[in-house]
Amino acid sequence: MAEHDVVEVIATKRDRGTLTTGQIDWVIDAYTRGEVADEQMSALAMAILLNGMDRAEISAWTAAMIASGERLDFSGLSRATTDKHSTGGVGDKITLPLAPLVAACGVAVPQLSGRGLGHTGGTLDKLESIPGWRAALSNDELRAQLDEVGAAVCAAGDGLAPADRKLYALRDVTGTVEAIPLIASSIMSKKIAEGTGALVLDVKVGSGAFMKDADRARELAEVMVGLGTDAGVRTVALLTDMSTPLGHTAGNALEVAESVDVLAGGGPADVVELTLALAREMLAAAGHDAVDPADKLVDGSAMDAWRRMIRAQGGDPEAPLPTARESHVVTAERDGVLTRLDALSVGTAAWRLGAGRARKEDPVQAGAGVRWHARPGDRVAVGDPLFTLSTDTPERFDRALAALEDGYTVSAPGTAYAAPPLVIDRVS
Amino acid sequence: MAEHDVVEVIATKRDRGTLTTGQIDWVIDAYTRGEVADEQMSALAMAILLNGMDRAEISAWTAAMIASGERLDFSGLSRATTDKHSTGGVGDKITLPLAPLVAACGVAVPQLSGRGLGHTGGTLDKLESIPGWRAALSNDELRAQLDEVGAAVCAAGDGLAPADRKLYALRDVTGTVEAIPLIASSIMSKKIAEGTGALVLDVKVGSGAFMKDADRARELAEVMVGLGTDAGVRTVALLTDMSTPLGHTAGNALEVAESVDVLAGGGPADVVELTLALAREMLAAAGHDAVDPADKLVDGSAMDAWRRMIRAQGGDPEAPLPTARESHVVTAERDGVLTRLDALSVGTAAWRLGAGRARKEDPVQAGAGVRWHARPGDRVAVGDPLFTLSTDTPERFDRALAALEDGYTVSAPGTAYAAPPLVIDRVS
Repeated sequence: MAEHDVVEVIATKRDRGTLTTGQIDWVIDAYTRGEVADEQMSALAMAILLNGMDRAEISAWTAAMIASGERLDFSGLSRATTDKHSTGGVGDKITLPLAPLVAACGVAVPQLSGRGLGHTGGTLDKLESIPGWRAALSNDELRAQLDEVGAAVCAAGDGLAPADRKLYALRDVTGTVEAIPLIASSIMSKKIAEGTGALVLDVKVGSGAFMKDADRARELAEVMVGLGTDAGVRTVALLTDMSTPLGHTAGNALEVAESVDVLAGGGPADVVELTLALAREMLAAAGHDAVDPADKLVDGSAMDAWRRMIRAQGGDPEAPLPTARESHVVTAERDGVLTRLDALSVGTAAWRLGAGRARKEDPVQAGAGVRWHARPGDRVAVGDPLFTLSTDTPERFDRALAALEDGYTVSAPGTAYAAPPLVIDRVS
Repeated sequence: MAEHDVVEVIATKRDRGTLTTGQIDWVIDAYTRGEVADEQMSALAMAILLNGMDRAEISAWTAAMIASGERLDFSGLSRATTDKHSTGGVGDKITLPLAPLVAACGVAVPQLSGRGLGHTGGTLDKLESIPGWRAALSNDELRAQLDEVGAAVCAAGDGLAPADRKLYALRDVTGTVEAIPLIASSIMSKKIAEGTGALVLDVKVGSGAFMKDADRARELAEVMVGLGTDAGVRTVALLTDMSTPLGHTAGNALEVAESVDVLAGGGPADVVELTLALAREMLAAAGHDAVDPADKLVDGSAMDAWRRMIRAQGGDPEAPLPTARESHVVTAERDGVLTRLDALSVGTAAWRLGAGRARKEDPVQAGAGVRWHARPGDRVAVGDPLFTLSTDTPERFDRALAALEDGYTVSAPGTAYAAPPLVIDRVS
């Protein structure tokens, strides 16, 4: 690869120029090797954040991050592969019922996932609340599990897009997370390297999401769909509401239990709706849309796939889930209608109770979290329980309650409430 | 000082906000202490470069850099103090005749100076070609020399604006040099900390200067004059031409010899003109404008001050200056008029011959450089010498000649040539 001068590369973007593929390949490779220093990459990241990148630059950037590590290949598998990625929300346990549901429909789901940071929970944290379950799979174990079970949710290995891991840690401490080209290439480099044949993106919009407004979320979705398409991965995105948290729970074991309810044919209506919408998109993207996934929730085959998936990674799907040692109930102070339940407030409360972590080395509590007994549109009477907060460390209640304080509105009895659509838009 | 979150500080400027004085004081102090990392400061520098700072922010930034170190105080000196700073040009030896000239007029010049990097030479490098002369003075030695001789050109000590030294090294490798707020605060923090009572800025404009166009040069001059004024230093700026190099020589010993010619009442007309223009501004800014500095070049008192200044720092003003071992002459290939002599080309040639350095740890050659025998407007005949190139390392001739190749134009005999004004504008 041709040598470049890093200051010239930075200056190109600083002066609103277009980076060549040669410059991008070199700077990502040199950064991964440590030849380009953190202070040079952070200056470049800020220039990218403020001056943008065009589609060809973002594609090249993503390709260079993929090329920094290994790329899995499931093309020899007995079934097609499809995956889903969510940009992160509160109560977003959708992966848990979704992966076995899609597997039950005959398409394999190789979901390499992450842990949570901040107010949004991580899928691995949730599954780790199941006794015995382990997140680590070797590439061979992953392939065998996809062949035999059809679904695996596991930790992304160190071999996938190491440049992204290094760059993400840098962006986190340098105020350069919020750049759409860098967000899109970070997500897509890992998903493309993971080797899935099709991909559905759940781009969250609203207070509890990384993207607070629909325009920026749509822009992110369009960039990511373009990147997937350019890389030969059939990619579709749904923009979905995250102004209200999903379901009735935020927390690790709490969300596993709610997911099992969905797999048993019950569960909260919004969780079921989003799970089915994403399953249909994943199946269609994999060219496998003759099956109606709703049937698989009713006939028990999705639940069977869940049990096999959990057991394959050492978990006991029948074991009781951990519960927190202490709980605290918030009740309604008036009669009325719940007209607002803010996702960010609920997520922050669950995080403060111990369900999430502030730094990536922190542990999480399996049983901690928030259950909300009413959803927007529900009538409440004075004294009704509105929230149950759970934690092993009761000194956390005060700060969690403070987060919830302005997080909901009980309006006068009879107030009309029209729920916003859960699926806002589709980008393909 | 109140703690701040560095990512919030970076995000404020990234999102086009205004940094508070508290944020600025904290971030400069924390960076100097190593609590804010290089990769965080470089991201902030890029955000400042792209989103700018207002006058209050730049003043606070400059004050914080001054506060990171010591501030000299010459208020108890027997005479007023005045200084000059040039943003750097080719053949810019003006400090050498200027400092003793102003001293001969009765005002002290405490010039803390630097070494050269790239195609512009450094004042200390030039003076170090004088046998015995040393750049280092303690604060006490500097004060004593100002009292006794009235002028000192010496290396800025480590105690002045250490935050600037650290930040400048960072900007140099992260593509963040070209930010007017950061250039202005870097220059002015050192000059204000140096303790001069008045300051004249020589802001160069043209191919050989850092600022290639007059609008950006004027903007830089205005910001710096504002900073000086805010800090209680009487500050004036001249915008001067640097499309053509100054005088007839670029190189260390070569420029000392030309400066001595000026002090002896001769020397190139443009060097004399700029020396006198800057001397008049320095004297006026110090409230000392009754004396005409031109007289001091004629009556020998400027030369006397030069000799005292050189001797005070161990130099022998009578010793022969070093000369390079090898030289090469470029002659005119046609009869005509020299209508263009490009400062950047000449500066690059002198640099490549060994007069300057590519990295700050490189040595320089005392005798290396370029002498141009004609200036724009001069008639030349075929075979006339145009340039004499000198170096101790003749393998450098080829690349130096390459730099000069497109650096001058000999037009047809009789072509009219109107010299641009040397002093383009004045900002106060």
